[in-house]
Parts: sequence; C-alpha cells; structure tokens
Amino acid sequence: MAKAAAKKVTTKKAKANPRNKKLYDEGMKVRNAVLGAAYVDNSMAGADDFMMSFQDITTEYCWGYAWTRPGLSKKTRSMLNLAMLAALNRGPELKLHINGALNNGLTKEEIKEIFIQVAIYCGIPASLDAFKTASGVFKERGV
Amino acid sequence: MAKAAAKKVTTKKAKANPRNKKLYDEGMKVRNAVLGAAYVDNSMAGADDFMMSFQDITTEYCWGYAWTRPGLSKKTRSMLNLAMLAALNRGPELKLHINGALNNGLTKEEIKEIFIQVAIYCGIPASLDAFKTASGVFKERGV
Amino acid sequence: MAKAAAKKVTTKKAKANPRNKKLYDEGMKVRNAVLGAAYVDNSMAGADDFMMSFQDITTEYCWGYAWTRPGLSKKTRSMLNLAMLAALNRGPELKLHINGALNNGLTKEEIKEIFIQVAIYCGIPASLDAFKTASGVFKERGV
Amino acid sequence: MAKAAAKKVTTKKAKANPRNKKLYDEGMKVRNAVLGAAYVDNSMAGADDFMMSFQDITTEYCWGYAWTRPGLSKKTRSMLNLAMLAALNRGPELKLHINGALNNGLTKEEIKEIFIQVAIYCGIPASLDAFKTASGVFKERGV
Amino acid sequence: MAKAAAKKVTTKKAKANPRNKKLYDEGMKVRNAVLGAAYVDNSMAGADDFMMSFQDITTEYCWGYAWTRPGLSKKTRSMLNLAMLAALNRGPELKLHINGALNNGLTKEEIKEIFIQVAIYCGIPASLDAFKTASGVFKERGV
Amino acid sequence: MAKAAAKKVTTKKAKANPRNKKLYDEGMKVRNAVLGAAYVDNSMAGADDFMMSFQDITTEYCWGYAWTRPGLSKKTRSMLNLAMLAALNRGPELKLHINGALNNGLTKEEIKEIFIQVAIYCGIPASLDAFKTASGVFKERGV
Repeated sequence: MAKAAAKKVTTKKAKANPRNKKLYDEGMKVRNAVLGAAYVDNSMAGADDFMMSFQDITTEYCWGYAWTRPGLSKKTRSMLNLAMLAALNRGPELKLHINGALNNGLTKEEIKEIFIQVAIYCGIPASLDAFKTASGVFKERGV
Repeated sequence: MAKAAAKKVTTKKAKANPRNKKLYDEGMKVRNAVLGAAYVDNSMAGADDFMMSFQDITTEYCWGYAWTRPGLSKKTRSMLNLAMLAALNRGPELKLHINGALNNGLTKEEIKEIFIQVAIYCGIPASLDAFKTASGVFKERGV
Repeated sequence: MAKAAAKKVTTKKAKANPRNKKLYDEGMKVRNAVLGAAYVDNSMAGADDFMMSFQDITTEYCWGYAWTRPGLSKKTRSMLNLAMLAALNRGPELKLHINGALNNGLTKEEIKEIFIQVAIYCGIPASLDAFKTASGVFKERGV
Repeated sequence: MAKAAAKKVTTKKAKANPRNKKLYDEGMKVRNAVLGAAYVDNSMAGADDFMMSFQDITTEYCWGYAWTRPGLSKKTRSMLNLAMLAALNRGPELKLHINGALNNGLTKEEIKEIFIQVAIYCGIPASLDAFKTASGVFKERGV
Repeated sequence: MAKAAAKKVTTKKAKANPRNKKLYDEGMKVRNAVLGAAYVDNSMAGADDFMMSFQDITTEYCWGYAWTRPGLSKKTRSMLNLAMLAALNRGPELKLHINGALNNGLTKEEIKEIFIQVAIYCGIPASLDAFKTASGVFKERGV
Repeated sequence: MAKAAAKKVTTKKAKANPRNKKLYDEGMKVRNAVLGAAYVDNSMAGADDFMMSFQDITTEYCWGYAWTRPGLSKKTRSMLNLAMLAALNRGPELKLHINGALNNGLTKEEIKEIFIQVAIYCGIPASLDAFKTASGVFKERGV
C-alpha cells in the first residue's frame, strides 16, 4: 500500500517538458484565459508522463503558437473552432470549446447561428450533435 | 445538327423550381452578392434539369435560409465556411468561398490566420491544401 | 423559486418559427410517420429557443423539402440514410434512423446487408459500430 | 531497348492471386456486369504486381463476398454506394459507381434524388461535388 | 418464460458461416493472438445471426486475408491501425487495438510517439481523443 | 515591366519567421532528408509571405517538433503517414509522403501491405486511391 501511494505521487509529479519555454509560457497563459485555470490545472495535475506529452504539444503549439497570434481575436478563433470541431465530429473537444467560446464572449445567439451554418455545410446530423452538446453546456452553466 | 442545336436550347431552358419563392429570391440576392452575379448567372445558364435541382436547394436553403439570417455578418459566415470547408476536405467549394470571403471583406492576413488555426485543429495536410488553394485564388485575382 | 418555475415554463413554450408554413407542416407529417409522433413530440416539448432553431431547420428542410419528394420511396431514403450515417460516423443519428428504417419497413436482413456493404466501402470499424448500434435497437424493440 | 520491352511484358504478365478461387470468379462475374467488362479488362491488363494486389482484394472481397449476396439487389447496392461515396468524398470511385448505377438500371431522376438526400445529411458541398460528377458522366454517356 | 429461455438459447447458437474455411480458420488464429481468445470467445458467444454476419466478414477478411500476410509484422500492423483509427475517429475500435498493440509488443513510449504524429497530421483533437483512450487502457491493464 | 520584375523579386524574398530557431533548423534538416532538398528549396523559393507562414509552421512544428523525436524511426513515421494520409483522403500530401517513404527505405512490398491494411480499415475506395497514387510515384521514379 505504501508502494501504491508512492507510485501515485510519482504519477502526479510528471513535469512539463517544453521545447521552447517562451512559447510554452505564453501558451499556458492564453489556455488558462480561454479554458479557465481550474480546468487546465486539473488536466495538468492528473497527467502522468504519457498524458503530459500531449499537454506539452498542445500548450506549446496549439496555444502558444496559434492562439497567441494577433491576427485574429480570441473570440473569432473560438468561432472557427466551433465550426471545425462540429465538422470533424469531435464531441468532447467541441464541448470544451463551447465553454471556451462563452469565456471569450460569444453569445448563445451567435453559437446558434454557427450551428445553423454547420447544418448547411456539414449536414443535419453534424448540426444535431453540435446543438445537443451546446445545450448541455448551457444547462451546466445556467446560460 | 439542327437537332443538336435544339437540344442545347432545351438544356439551357431548365427553370428554377423553388418551394418557397420568397426565400429563393432572398437567397439569390445574397448569393449574387457573395459569389458575384457573373459566376451565379453562369452556373444557372449552364444547368440542365438535373443540375437545376441542386441550384434550387442551394439557393433556397443554403443562401435563402442561412445566409440571410441577421445573427452573423456575411464576413463571419465566410470565415466559418473557410474553416469548415478545409476541415471537410472540399477543395472546389473551398476555392469558391475563398473568392466569396474576399468579396465579403476578409483580408489575406485574416485568411492566413484561419488556415493556421486549421493546421492545429485539422492537421498539417488540411492546412497545406487550404494554403495552396488560397494562393491560387490570390494569383488569379492579383491580391 | 417562483421565478425559476416561471423560467421553466417559458423554456417549454419555445415556438416553432417556420419560414414556410406549408413546407414545415408537410415536413412534420413525414417526420412523425418515420420517427414516430411520440419521439417527435418529446423533442419539440423539450426544446428551448436554442434547440427550437434546430427543430425548425430540420423539420422544414430535411423533412419538408427532401423526405416529401416523390422521386424515392421512404424505405429507399431510409436505406440511403443508414449508409450515409455509418459513413459519416454519426452514432446517435444512426440509431434514430435505424428506428426510422424499421418503421419504413426495412427488415433485419436488409439492414444486415447494408452494413456488410458499409464494411467494404467504409471499412471494418465503421461496420462494427453500425452493427452494434443496430443490435442495440433490435434488442430495445424486440426485433 | 530489348530490356525495356522485356520489362514491359513482365509488367503485363502480373497474375491474379486469389485466396478463394470460387469467390474470385463469382466476383469477377458481377464486377464485369456492373462496371462493364471493357473497363475491368483494361484495369486488369494495366496492372503490375503492385496494382494486382489491389485487383485481387477488390475482386474477391468487395465483389465476390459482398456484391454476390442475394439479400439486396444490385440496383439497391448501387444506390447505397452513391450515398456512401458522396459522404466519404471519394470522387474517382463515385464516378465509377455512377456508371455502375446506370448499368444497374438507376435513372437520372433517382440519382438526382439520392444527391438531394446527400445535401441534407452530408451538406451542400458534398452534394455539389456529387451533382457535378454525375453531370459529367451523363454527358459522356449521352444520358 | 420457457419460451424466452428457448429464444435466448437459439440466439446463442448462431453459427459462423465462412465462405472460405481455410481463410476463416487462419483468421481466427491471428485474431485470438492479437485481441486475446477471451475477448474473441465472448464476442462470438454473444452474437446472434445478425452480429454473426459481422463476425464472419471480419474474421475471414480483416484477420484471415490481411493480418495473416507475411509482408508486415503484426507489430507494424498494430502501429498502422492506431494511426488509422485515430484518423478515422473510431474510438471503440481504437481502444480494442490499443489492447492489441500492447499484445503485439508495442511499448507505451511507442504509442505515445504514434499519437504525437497523429497530432501533427490529424490535428490536436484527434490526438487528445487517442491519448485519453490509451490512458484508459493503460489504467485498466496497469501498464 | 521593371515594376513586375521588382514585384517578383519581392515575392521571392519572403523570409522564414520561426518562433523557435533551434526547432526550425532541426526541422529543416530532417525535412530535407525525408522530402529531398531540391523539393524543399523549391517550396521555399516559391513562397510569398502568405505561403511562408505555412512553411514556418510545418518546418518548426511538424518536422522540428515531431519528426526529430528519437522514439520512432523515420521509416516508421513514414509508414504511419501513409496510413493516416490514406485515411484522411489527402491525395497531394499522400503523394509527397510516398516519395518520403521511399527515401526513408520503405520497399514497394511494404507500401503494398500498408494499403492492403488501408483497404480493410478505411474501405476499398481509400485503398484504390492510395494504390493509384503510389503507382504514379513508382512510375515517375522508375521503382
């Protein structure tokens, strides 16, 4: 039992291993701002070495390289993400980014319009899944 | 030869057959504004009965029902389309909507940022295809 | 608390907002016939303004515009849907339309053959998901 | 030059290598019936060892195992294929199977309806690609 | 109640119906080796006639035709499967083949690298789903 | 005319703008090794500012971050890429990486086996496209 406990601690101690500290730190800042620090902290705390390698690449490249670029507002990037994630059929990530979209100032009305546009270009089933996922998020957050 | 000519005329005479005249007319207006009347006229003129059934549904439903909605600007709908069409791997429609995006006021810089976001969320190959398609359009239009 | 209750009632009172009443009504009729009035009533009753915008577009365009067309039987449209939804990897909508397919007269044997065709053209994993989903529906309905 | 000629002959001599001779022969029969013997002969004659391994698996498994099954008519299998190939975004194979569909007795009207159904469930861009591909086939065959 | 019991027994008695006994038997052997006999026995025992038609095609073609080929090691085929199933967004089959990959000798490190490659070519959301699925399997097996 | 020439020169002078110089340089090295320096030089020389932003992200992130990792050999990464790109239906990038795979030591036999595995898991149309693309590359290179 002592061994198991020790093992758990080791698991929690997985450390980030950025290739580029500056990019990583900038990424972490915008990631916290969009997804919420509580969510991100939780993902990081629960990550063993295996999961941490995903945390590294997503923090450094997805957030540090792309989201920090000044060419589009965070709100616009959220809009694009809702459209892409609905098209790609990635439910759990779509849910995450509906939360991020609300944090970035999108209204329920705007999200509705995005998923109507999805109905036309990706088809009715893609739209249904997106509407249902958003509906669940709105209920959780009382929006 | 007279017969062939006659046949050609018949082909050109395929008529729109909207279920909802009002939506169809509103759709045609926004479609012309986004894609350019010359392009749309050409698509309509070349359509036989078979192709006209596609023209009908896209004008009425895609353009009349969705694009006319006031909840998002045409510029924002164009942005969403570039993201979705890159994700869906639909090259010819992507090309069409890069033209539409320029008509709706998107800059080359904004299109670049959209396709960087595509690289992260849809992968490098989706992004490469999108960059190349856009590059071709910019050359054609001298942008 | 009185306020919360009032809010709930408002939520339930979300009303359909068809662009074309005739298309919408025809759509609702065929939708009820294929998916079952109980299922549809339940979807409508649970819809707030946000979800109702999806109900509107699907009733009017998916059901009213496409399913009412005389060119293919409802049974054939169900067959196409099973093939498309398996290809598109849309599990919840596939489940819905396996129910619809049974309502439209497809036999278990025919559904089996459709998903064998899916195995060849969409791959073994698409086929496995479809077989499992159908198997669940058959159990629920005692088919 | 003699060497090059010899090489060419070797290339043409690639032989089918079925795992199940009976399935292979039944498959070849239905494949010829659906796609036309001229097309199939041409594919086989042009195949070197590399391409022949694809010819083997498609003849035996796709045509011999699936298309020969009595549970669905060849016409129905063609319908499913048009829907799946449009959903999967596989243009060249879609073109091939529009030809097959015409050989199996589908009318231009039925193909039109299939691709309207595609517009709703897979989105407008999938439908546009399918309509255009079919339109090209109709022109080639004078349908 | 006696009837229900009888029905259950009939359901369990669904029998494999291979087109090619040799291919089927070779397929079953490699399937057992990769996925584990316990898992396969369980799938077979639970299969009624409907599900058995999937078991037949997968055992005979997926396992008998492809996995038995000497041109690639089983370990390499597992690697390809992880990459394809992540790209195709087929979660349940991905989970199955992460188990198969471990049985075929892939290390946690190698699986990590495969899913980093997925992040680049299929996008961050595909990679996240794959990392999470693998993480769940590692926990179940105590890897 | 002098102006046009000047413009051309400007276009060619687009410069790489890496976020992480070390990763970028390492990435360029492995990219040259896999795709061939001639191909890469050509891509870089033809890139204006718009295309250069894609060159930057792919060199730094795809090649510098992922391909340089020691956990998998370049040959194995090529194998995974062929499987993923066939699954994702990305023809031009697939062609590029069939060339890369040959440069990394894959044999024609191994590529054949990869695309047989694709036939089973992604479906016959995905496999046909991959076989045809590879066949074209083999002809170009005289393999």
